[in-house]
Order: sequence, then C-alpha cells, then structure tokens
Amino acid sequence: MPVLEIPGGICAAKGFLASGIHCGIRHNTSKQDLAIIVSEVDCTAAAVYTQNKVKGAPLIVTKNNIQNGVARGIICNSGNANTCAPGGLKTAKACCEIAAKATGLNPENFVIASTGVIGQELPLAPFVEGIPKAVAALSKDGGQDAAAAIMTTDTKMKEYAIEFKLDGAPCRIGIIGKGSGMVQPNMATNLFFITTDAAITSPLLQDALRTVTQVTFNQVSIDGDTSTNDMAVVLANGLANNPMIADKTSAYLDFCTHLQAVCTWMCRAIAADGEGATKLLECHVTGAPTTEMARAIAKSVIASNLLKAAMFGADANWGRILCAIGYTPGDFSVEQVSVTLKSKAGSVLVCRQSAHSPYSEEDASRILAEDKIWIEVDLENGPAEGVAWGCDLTYDYVKINGDYRS
Amino acid sequence: MPVLEIPGGICAAKGFLASGIHCGIRHNTSKQDLAIIVSEVDCTAAAVYTQNKVKGAPLIVTKNNIQNGVARGIICNSGNANTCAPGGLKTAKACCEIAAKATGLNPENFVIASTGVIGQELPLAPFVEGIPKAVAALSKDGGQDAAAAIMTTDTKMKEYAIEFKLDGAPCRIGIIGKGSGMVQPNMATNLFFITTDAAITSPLLQDALRTVTQVTFNQVSIDGDTSTNDMAVVLANGLANNPMIADKTSAYLDFCTHLQAVCTWMCRAIAADGEGATKLLECHVTGAPTTEMARAIAKSVIASNLLKAAMFGADANWGRILCAIGYTPGDFSVEQVSVTLKSKAGSVLVCRQSAHSPYSEEDASRILAEDKIWIEVDLENGPAEGVAWGCDLTYDYVKINGDYRS
Repeated sequence: MPVLEIPGGICAAKGFLASGIHCGIRHNTSKQDLAIIVSEVDCTAAAVYTQNKVKGAPLIVTKNNIQNGVARGIICNSGNANTCAPGGLKTAKACCEIAAKATGLNPENFVIASTGVIGQELPLAPFVEGIPKAVAALSKDGGQDAAAAIMTTDTKMKEYAIEFKLDGAPCRIGIIGKGSGMVQPNMATNLFFITTDAAITSPLLQDALRTVTQVTFNQVSIDGDTSTNDMAVVLANGLANNPMIADKTSAYLDFCTHLQAVCTWMCRAIAADGEGATKLLECHVTGAPTTEMARAIAKSVIASNLLKAAMFGADANWGRILCAIGYTPGDFSVEQVSVTLKSKAGSVLVCRQSAHSPYSEEDASRILAEDKIWIEVDLENGPAEGVAWGCDLTYDYVKINGDYRS
Repeated sequence: MPVLEIPGGICAAKGFLASGIHCGIRHNTSKQDLAIIVSEVDCTAAAVYTQNKVKGAPLIVTKNNIQNGVARGIICNSGNANTCAPGGLKTAKACCEIAAKATGLNPENFVIASTGVIGQELPLAPFVEGIPKAVAALSKDGGQDAAAAIMTTDTKMKEYAIEFKLDGAPCRIGIIGKGSGMVQPNMATNLFFITTDAAITSPLLQDALRTVTQVTFNQVSIDGDTSTNDMAVVLANGLANNPMIADKTSAYLDFCTHLQAVCTWMCRAIAADGEGATKLLECHVTGAPTTEMARAIAKSVIASNLLKAAMFGADANWGRILCAIGYTPGDFSVEQVSVTLKSKAGSVLVCRQSAHSPYSEEDASRILAEDKIWIEVDLENGPAEGVAWGCDLTYDYVKINGDYRS
C-alpha cells in the first residue's frame, strides 16, 4: 500500500507538541533522558502493555490513568526502568503530579513510561526541575528531541509520520519508538508512542491498536527477551475534524490500515537497529494452514540464534531455516517447504520440497551481503500468510550486553 | 547423591564394545567421523527423539528398527546430519545393512544416528569401507574413540560411567554425548548414547529414559534451537545378572536415580561446552507452585540471551533474571522473588522481595568471574523446585555460527 510520508514525527498530527531534554537521570549530560508530548486538547487514548509478569511501576500508573480512555500527554524517561525499584509507584505518580502542575492539567491526564536498567532506584530529583523545563520547551518542532530522549542502546532515532484521508478529511499519524534489545513482545513491545489527529472513540482506538499490534509489534524479535516495561500508546485528539469513528465502518478500516503502515515502518526500524545488528531480516511465510501458524513460523525463523548468526556471516545455511520452521508449535506439514533468500542484489531458491535446490553459493553470498534480507517460506500447506522482522546476531550484541551497566 | 564414578565410558558396562574411526565423511582426515557401539548379546532398547517436525532420516530408521524394544548396536556419523537430503532414508538403511553384514547381525538390530550440516546429500561410499573397518576395530577400549567420532563443534569429549548395585548385583551405566549448538530440546536432545548391563524390560527402560529426560536433557538450553536430529538412546544387555526389572520396584527407582545421575553429569558437560561458552550456568528454582513451572522458570533464566551475555561480562545484572522469570508462562506470583548468585568464590544475595538487595558489586564480579555459576531463585510461592543448565553467550558463539559450513 503506498502511503504519503510527511515530516514532523510525533508532532505531525495537528495539536501535538513535544520536547526532549537532559534532566540528569543519565550521567552523560549530552544525552537527552526526558521526553514530554502534550496535546492541545483532550485525546482518546489506548495502550497495549508487556505480558511480562514483572511489570515496571510506570505501566501500573499509566494503566490506571487511562482506564477512562482519555489522556492529554506522555512523560517518558530513559536511563532507568523504574522496575523492581524501591518507591517506584510513588516516583511515577509524583512525576505525573509535577507534569500536571507545570501544564495546568490533572495528574491522571498523563501516560508515564520509563526505560533503562531494572532494579535501581529512580531518583525524583531530576524530574522536579526537569519536567517544568521540558514543559516550557514544548513545541511543534520538538519531535526529534522527544525521539532522541527515549533512546537507550538504539543507534538511530526512530520517528515517522504519514498523511491520509478519513471520510475526505486529511488526517495524520505519527510515531516515535525505541528498541533495541529485550525485544520479543507478546503483546506490546518496547516504547512506541503514536499520535493522531483522527477523531475516533477510545474503544475503537483500543481495538485498532490491539489488532495492529498482533501483526506488527508482536512480530518483531531481537533476542527473545520480553521486557518488563514496554508499551505502545496511541493518543487521538480529533483535530482533523473527520466524522468521529465510532463503529467498524470503512473509515475505521482505513484508520487501521494506516496505523498498520506506521507500525510496520517502526518494526523494520526497530529490527534493523537491533542491538549489534548489521542486517534487517524480514520473513514472509505463505501457504500455512492458519494466520496464527504463519506468524508463529515467521517469528521462529527470524528468532533463531543459529540462523541469525548465519545471516551475520552471509551464509545461506537454509537447513537452519527448516529447523526453525520444524520446531514451531502447531500442526502443519513440513514436506513441501520451499525457501527463497532475497535482497536488492537478487534472489535464490535454496530449498524446494524440503530438500536442497541447486543454487550458486556465490550468488547466495552476494545476495546475503546486503543489509536487508527477505526470507520467503512457502509451506504449500494452506492459504494463510504472515510476516516477522528480526536482525542478525553479531559480536556487538554480545559486547553491548556483556557489560550493559558500566 | 554420591555416585561411584568408574572409567570406560560407553564400554564400562559388561559386554559393550566400541570404536571410532575416520571414514571420509569429513574432509579433515585427523577427525574421526564414524562411531560403532555393539553389545555381545541382545539388549532391551529405549529412545527419545527430537520434537522438531523436520526429522533426520536416521531417526525414522531407528524408530522403526527398535519398535520391538530390542537392539544390539549403534552406528553414528558426524559431519552430515542426513536431514532434508536426497535419498536420506535409503542411505540410513544401507548403513544398517552394511553393519549387519560386517557383524553377522540383522539390519534391524541397529540404532542409527547422524549429526552435522542439514540439507546436503550424505554419500554412502565412506560407509561401505568404513563400517567394516569400524566393526573390525571394536574393542573394550574403544569408548573414547567412539566419543570423539560423534563430536561436532564440541571442544571436549564427553564420556562418563558409574557403578552401583541393583538388588545386590553390581551394575554399570555409561554414556557418551555430543553438543553443542542447537540445544533446546523439548524431548530428547542432541546425541546421547547410554549403555548399561542392568537387566530391565524395554517398557520400563523406556519409562525410565522418558522420566529422566524431563529433568535432565530437556532442561538444557544453549541457544534456543531444537535440532532435527537429536536423540537419546539407552541399551541394556542384562549381563550384570541382577533380577530382571519388570515392575516399578525399588530396584527400578534405584536404576532411575543412577540413570539420572549419569544424564545430569552429561547436561553439565554439554552446557559447559556450549558453542563459544566460557561459563556453565546452573539455575535452581525453589518455591514454585508446581514442578513444571519451576523447571520452566529455570529454563527461561538460563535461556535468556540478555542474561547469558551479562554472565559473559561477569555483570550481576539481576534485573534480567527477574525479567526472564516474569515472561515464563504460567500463573505464579513475582512479588516475593529472591535471587542469589553463587560460585566457588562465594555467594551474594542480589534481589530480595523482587527488589534490589544491597550487595557489593566487587564481590559479585569476583563471584561471576568463575567458570561455574549457580543462580538460585526462590519464588516463595509454593513447594516445587526445578533445575536447568545453560552457558554464557559469547563472541565465539557468533563466530562459530556465523560461518559454520566453511
């Protein structure tokens, strides 16, 4: 589906302002560590959260604050996850209160999120001065600062926005997100903040986010670890003046399609910037008995450490793809599997009817030397398809995670 | 449980002979690639196999050959898995026929196994000369050669044997095994060959192997990948002259206890020699609601890439342990978790009541610098416990797997 990309990221939609500053949670004063996003008017709000039973304090506060389906802004710090940490709930609530005071809103108007190391106390002091400073800095141009402030081991800032029409009214959706390790969501993943000026009720917004999450954020795996803190939040402020989406009309489906486009862009960005990654892997499974199985198989393939290491080495070791397909739970046949490896340098069929298909290793190496690799799997065992995104496993992944806290 | 270790490995039990030779499957002529193990008399036989839906041809032949619960010998090659390979079944059957001819036995008397690369044709030619040569070399001293011949990326030969009494009669159990990547079994794992001179019926032998596999081989994870070819096989020839174990008597329980001791030894050896590993990780979970949950939690912890990388860096990043506990499926509380890190250099309580417990990072680094690390997790949420074994994630894992086939 062709979409119209526009600048502005998280501030591309009407009525959203953002900022990102260094408030002192991180020692490195040149790294922003506090982002604030605020809408000029009330928004309907929806969120999905990590399925980890160990949950960061901010998730609990956010869940409570937006249970009425309404929000105005988002507070997010990096450098400390505020999870398994003394006084975590109190600190998260206090941040919302400081933000409320600085903006003239209520504490319950805020979504709050934290990302970083687990188990260390998050001091309140940096927020006492930092939040009013960040509120004062809110602007239409602050999207990039906000995107930068939520980064942890990400090497690239991730922001994106598109414009489209809903019942004739131009609408916008923007997103910022952060990876890049601990990415194996089962519901939400890492931190994704989405803003839109579409008018849509909160139940339908929640429904749209949940549906889209299944085929986007839940299909990304960097390392098989499901974080304690991750969430995706969408705020919709209605300033686009489209007729309110309150039912599953064609406008609702249009909204979902475009929300999916934005989230898919982000999945690719997150996977390509996985910790230590040199390659984006995208696995397309077709011919599966059900959509669930197709998605599960695609995810098995891109999550296999053995395959990920082979991709790093540009080695067309397709046996590892068959192996990963084979250990995916579910009742499907592995007798007729074909596998094609693709990149912008070409494509090569490496496996047909679950056996070696003659190909040139030289061609395969050339194709796999690229930084975006498509792995196409056809099971010839049904009508369903699915996609998942991942990255290669590299020395740098080990390096980054061998000594994360120092 | 104290056990009496004895020399002899796979030949420690009465009546078992073994050999290992280079027959030409591998290019490197100094690396043995064919092992044969034969009992002087018929054995009861039991096996567990990989749960991967993609299965190597040898597994299918073995399953058929020992469905009557009887076997005499084992043929195993390394260097090629004979999986997703043209003519695989035919080749595996032909190997059994060659072995039968060379030994005067029947083709159905043999267990056959292969390990190595997937998807390449396994030539029969090396076996035509190799099997008779290996049969001629069978001896009581051949255990180490057999153990060496089944190795792939293993850096250490793995053999072990113990002696114990069953109803007063001295019995022996010996094992050889190979790792060391693609180890995330759900039923059997990699290749484990076990011989014993105990007299036990094949149904009870199967029962014992299945029970012990659950708490041993199934609790090892190197990299989350479940192989297509792996199996554990036990042959019991009865030459110890203990009263035949035909019921779940105390002798049966004794047999299980000692089988478990041998398999546990092997789990530690496999995990410690995981691809690229510098450390053995052993996670003990107590206070879980059920044994299944305890085992699953222990396995989540030792399988977490993030934790594995932290262990490589001797970094006491216990938040990653809490995270891995939290994403284990099952209904259990994560409110009262305590975590202790131990090695022969000491122990340190890093987490109490699911929050930071004050400790010295210096102590923790010193403890984690050792090559065997125990991670003790107490959930305070029930009576059950479980153990799992793994290893750290290192640069060398990536190196080994980045270019496995060259």
